Amino acid sequence: MSGRADPFAAERPARLAALRSVLQSEGLDGIVVRSPALSRYLSGFVIRRGDELTSGYSGSLLVTAAANRLLADNRYIEQAAVEAPGWDLVQSDTPPQVLLPQLLAETGIARLGLEADALSHSTWLALAAAAPEVELVAIDAALAELRIRKSPAEIEAIGRACTLGDAAFAHLCATVRPGMTERAVAREIADFFESHGAEDLAFDSIVLVGARASMPHGVPDDTAVREGTVLLLDFGCQVDGYRSDMTRTVFVGEPTERARHQHDLVAGAQDAALEVTRVGASAAAPQRAAQAFLAEAGYPDAFRHGIGHGIGLETHEPPSLKHADTPLEAGMVFSMEPGLYLPGEIGIRIEDIVVLEETGPRFLTEAPRHGLVVGERQAA
Amino acid sequence: MSGRADPFAAERPARLAALRSVLQSEGLDGIVVRSPALSRYLSGFVIRRGDELTSGYSGSLLVTAAANRLLADNRYIEQAAVEAPGWDLVQSDTPPQVLLPQLLAETGIARLGLEADALSHSTWLALAAAAPEVELVAIDAALAELRIRKSPAEIEAIGRACTLGDAAFAHLCATVRPGMTERAVAREIADFFESHGAEDLAFDSIVLVGARASMPHGVPDDTAVREGTVLLLDFGCQVDGYRSDMTRTVFVGEPTERARHQHDLVAGAQDAALEVTRVGASAAAPQRAAQAFLAEAGYPDAFRHGIGHGIGLETHEPPSLKHADTPLEAGMVFSMEPGLYLPGEIGIRIEDIVVLEETGPRFLTEAPRHGLVVGERQAA
Repeated sequence: MSGRADPFAAERPARLAALRSVLQSEGLDGIVVRSPALSRYLSGFVIRRGDELTSGYSGSLLVTAAANRLLADNRYIEQAAVEAPGWDLVQSDTPPQVLLPQLLAETGIARLGLEADALSHSTWLALAAAAPEVELVAIDAALAELRIRKSPAEIEAIGRACTLGDAAFAHLCATVRPGMTERAVAREIADFFESHGAEDLAFDSIVLVGARASMPHGVPDDTAVREGTVLLLDFGCQVDGYRSDMTRTVFVGEPTERARHQHDLVAGAQDAALEVTRVGASAAAPQRAAQAFLAEAGYPDAFRHGIGHGIGLETHEPPSLKHADTPLEAGMVFSMEPGLYLPGEIGIRIEDIVVLEETGPRFLTEAPRHGLVVGERQAA
Repeated sequence: MSGRADPFAAERPARLAALRSVLQSEGLDGIVVRSPALSRYLSGFVIRRGDELTSGYSGSLLVTAAANRLLADNRYIEQAAVEAPGWDLVQSDTPPQVLLPQLLAETGIARLGLEADALSHSTWLALAAAAPEVELVAIDAALAELRIRKSPAEIEAIGRACTLGDAAFAHLCATVRPGMTERAVAREIADFFESHGAEDLAFDSIVLVGARASMPHGVPDDTAVREGTVLLLDFGCQVDGYRSDMTRTVFVGEPTERARHQHDLVAGAQDAALEVTRVGASAAAPQRAAQAFLAEAGYPDAFRHGIGHGIGLETHEPPSLKHADTPLEAGMVFSMEPGLYLPGEIGIRIEDIVVLEETGPRFLTEAPRHGLVVGERQAA
């Protein structure tokens, strides 16, 4: 609850209208939205990162052709009144499996759309048992469509988060020194974002030294940054709920020729992937291009995770660049993050965020990618 | 991945044996564990807070009478080898709805236990469709039993987290001054835990000034701490994955008589609740006692959230102190957190963690509760 004006106030009526068009296209009388990101997208109500597990049904939306209601228990009702001014608030301490059937009966809903991905199996069964006359329909695919192409205002918000990420990276290049632990570097990132106006981190930063960087999701520990090897930095923040995400792998002191070559290969793989990132191309094309490039260079097995994920109000959201049958479209915003992982030796990843435009991908992250050397023996 | 020895190594065989006893009691050939907390409890493998949404199926366990396997994709496989040495690792980049049916067929499982609370409805349906010959059985209640009474080693870990919380609170009493923003205080808490060996926060700290404290889950913003009103501090950390959680509501400068009286009432409500917190009592008895106490004092509607939740490898886990039909048992560890919320005026909450012993509840948090005054005009 920031107290300041909602930067997306002007867009919210159109967002709600787009949701209502799903009522028609799917033949529904109502839609219940449970996922915090979609609820925020539509209403402005914020469930913070980490609170998803304890917020109960607060933030759930019930939308029909005539009504748009936001449910909040007594812990969240004041916040909801401030953040979601256009929504009718339903405050209740009744459990949702009792409350929701009551609301459905009141509003005369016979066919209800729901997010099967966002509801637990037990919640779905409890609802089905409590409202046996209501037909429950999974509409995840139709809902994903609402957010998969970003508006100019959304691209601008993601861009501001990415710019803050660029600034954090510049700050790290200036401050990281041999001897600092991975955890201390992660804390430096968190402090930078916090003191420069970010709403939150996008995710816990990944900071890994040397061979530890071969764990694509490794956890920072007390390992110290040291000269003669790499430091992998993967971090992001939130601005108005919109996320950034970037990875740079820097050298501490002078790199070996082998490490520098490997880094060049990852940069080359990213270039190869971006080369085929075009409107109308298969979403799986960039991954294939990067893997072919690395295989050609002698590393057929060194890069196996997904090359990219959509980003917006969630750090990972559609489109996934894994699905060959998804065509890339203008307005999609996603990461491009090839890596090269040799367990026991090294891990390198370069990750940028791009928005796809009619003319090709445009970088939202702008930090330099190449030849970075930090530490006391910094290159002149 | 801390690199140091697993403090629960000695307990893990008994934990796995207890899980296997569920195979027998529920007539199952196998169990799949998906929730990060239960997976960590059994295997030692850690999915960090915030990574639940992006870790995919990594950390999932498949246990039969003869086998115990841990699934991890290539991002997590190295970490799994270090953290879960007693488990057979299954590395695969195959989607779980394809991989899991293969494993079930291999292991000849006809009746499989699953967590309906931890699996999305869509995942459950995908599994059912992919393995139509396997009967899927929700066993959440039986699995909750495994962790609901804590071992001495677990109580000790929760106690260490609580002691760190006490120390953080002492630090705040010494450092918080009028003019600091809620966000700055929250950052002070995070920095303290980070620099004193906590693995992570248990949740994002709640720091609220004055009337803002009437939002039980309000979000810290740039509101400044000021004299003449309260500051509510609700925070916790993790030690070896085990959580602490405590709330203190302190006065900044001299409190009004009315505010001091209200604070005394919340303390009295906590005392009244603890009075009936006994082995064999209904889990709902403490809530009823606290609410009766506050109603008697003229505040029948000022406290409506749940008075307590179990705590362990999750910040909120069974037992919930809402369920009248759950008897309290020795070894249960839970919060005791009555509050008094008057929108527009004030919010007060006092939260401690207790372990229930045969002789009654024992505090694991030990920070002083009463008459706390911080700020420049600190009482002599």
